Amino acid sequence: MESKIRIGIAGYGNLGKGVEFAIAQQPDMELVGIFTRRDPSSVQPVGDNVSVYQLADVEKHVNDVDVMILCGGSRADLPEQGPALAKLFTTIDSFDTHAKIPEYFDAIDAAAKPSGTTAILSVGWDPGLFSLNRLYGETVLADGATYTFWGKGLSQGHSDAVRRINGVKNAVQYTIPSEEAISKVRAGKQPELSTREKHVRECYVVLEAGADAATVEDTIVTMPDYFSDYDTTVSFISEEEMQQNHSTMPHGGFVIRSGKTGKGTNQVMEYSLTLDSNPEFTSSVLTAYARAAYRLNQLGQHGAKTVFDIPPGLLSPKDPAQLRKELL
Amino acid sequence: MESKIRIGIAGYGNLGKGVEFAIAQQPDMELVGIFTRRDPSSVQPVGDNVSVYQLADVEKHVNDVDVMILCGGSRADLPEQGPALAKLFTTIDSFDTHAKIPEYFDAIDAAAKPSGTTAILSVGWDPGLFSLNRLYGETVLADGATYTFWGKGLSQGHSDAVRRINGVKNAVQYTIPSEEAISKVRAGKQPELSTREKHVRECYVVLEAGADAATVEDTIVTMPDYFSDYDTTVSFISEEEMQQNHSTMPHGGFVIRSGKTGKGTNQVMEYSLTLDSNPEFTSSVLTAYARAAYRLNQLGQHGAKTVFDIPPGLLSPKDPAQLRKELL
Repeated sequence: MESKIRIGIAGYGNLGKGVEFAIAQQPDMELVGIFTRRDPSSVQPVGDNVSVYQLADVEKHVNDVDVMILCGGSRADLPEQGPALAKLFTTIDSFDTHAKIPEYFDAIDAAAKPSGTTAILSVGWDPGLFSLNRLYGETVLADGATYTFWGKGLSQGHSDAVRRINGVKNAVQYTIPSEEAISKVRAGKQPELSTREKHVRECYVVLEAGADAATVEDTIVTMPDYFSDYDTTVSFISEEEMQQNHSTMPHGGFVIRSGKTGKGTNQVMEYSLTLDSNPEFTSSVLTAYARAAYRLNQLGQHGAKTVFDIPPGLLSPKDPAQLRKELL
Repeated sequence: MESKIRIGIAGYGNLGKGVEFAIAQQPDMELVGIFTRRDPSSVQPVGDNVSVYQLADVEKHVNDVDVMILCGGSRADLPEQGPALAKLFTTIDSFDTHAKIPEYFDAIDAAAKPSGTTAILSVGWDPGLFSLNRLYGETVLADGATYTFWGKGLSQGHSDAVRRINGVKNAVQYTIPSEEAISKVRAGKQPELSTREKHVRECYVVLEAGADAATVEDTIVTMPDYFSDYDTTVSFISEEEMQQNHSTMPHGGFVIRSGKTGKGTNQVMEYSLTLDSNPEFTSSVLTAYARAAYRLNQLGQHGAKTVFDIPPGLLSPKDPAQLRKELL
């Protein structure tokens, strides 16, 4: 029996907790510990006998961890932690600021390649599994159009971005597909739809005492990459209302490729997710890709990678012959 | 500008025609010619100025073709043609006799590896894209159940198998998902369902003059791998009825992974295809994978491969940086 893949978790919010749960479901992985910027004694892991360490001391564990799963936010944490940790460990992260992926990739690659580590970035469902379906869609049905719809659901990255604004105490952001846009796509009409036409974004915000609502609202709706291209509504609510009505994190959505083959034959490929917990699902994707990162590193394939670079079979604990027999 | 990938088509039925159409949609591919066991002058390609050659002379074209796409049937053609052509060319095929994939893989691998060719086998949608979704499903949601449903649709492989029975002049086979089974799965109940419980198979058969209907029916319903595990009905019809009512080839189906994360949170991943032409879609998948086979061969990765071994990015004419920027 081979030894288990030793996993570390860097950052212990919803995503980190989800990774802890996901590791427990994988037969060939074990959790080495949680690494946090907080006081370790203040962190309560979901499992028993889980070690919690200072993130500042992470270098001491460089020989104990095979793959570090980065569970920080894309806006403030990962741009710094991603390259720093990729110098020390083979890593997985869920960097999801789509417009900044190319520069983030370059920074990670520059850190990982000379260090002999392997870093798979922007893993999750979008970017991640949805990206894969956009790719399979447009390569198979070369003559066609691809549509990605999100929601209704809470977006972690966007909620996080709102929470970091000065004067915001707490916030959630829901993405909602436009019913009108969906109807057009399902009818096979291949309409041209702008980002703004496909979804609306709803923000619920709890202000810090003394914060100016108009300033916060303006900061949100004009935020580049996140909100400036969308119809965004902002509602200010109390902390009590937030806890009562906005404490679960459902999400989902779908990727549709509508295309034509032969002399104009209609073909439709559709991928959809219905998630009762967005962070727990994202965590499960991160954890599956940790196995692939470990194997690629063992194979000497170093540097930055994305889901597009990963042979799907490397995600599975089953060996190639078993996969062919059972799943092909 | 790089030179185009030069494609050959071995076998020119519905699948071969579909590949010819699909190549025309790909910016970086060109069709070298069609290779047939028939008299080449009897073959009418869909495009103009397409060369048609004797399959027996295929070895003369070994330096003209980068990837040979095998468009023969799984039951009688591919077990022989697959290994023979993999000795000469980098190949793609759609071998779809699930139970025999492991031995077919070994035969192809033994032919391709010493020849320095790359052969991706069992490409299409099932096996193929559905297999990928079974894999992504069970690796991400490790605690769960996977369901594959087909149809309603015409199955090429099964129709082909019936047509090869002595006394059968023409035949089509439709696979139909059981409505009762689908309802249980959609309700998130993770029921245990046997192959027989999930689908029924309907065959429509035109007999040769003098053939014995009872013998043909018995041969169909007891055929291993193809029909013996299913509730199968056989109807005998006239050639006129066959042409009038059974001349299009729609298909589709879905793969659902229903799983639990965290402390019992429900998560559902679903992949579905709605195809107005099954062979044209399968051909489009084969053609996209031809690009990956060509690239793997260029990279020195020889031998037999399946969709599980192929990094998704290799399917696309776009380069990795463009994929990250546009699709991730």
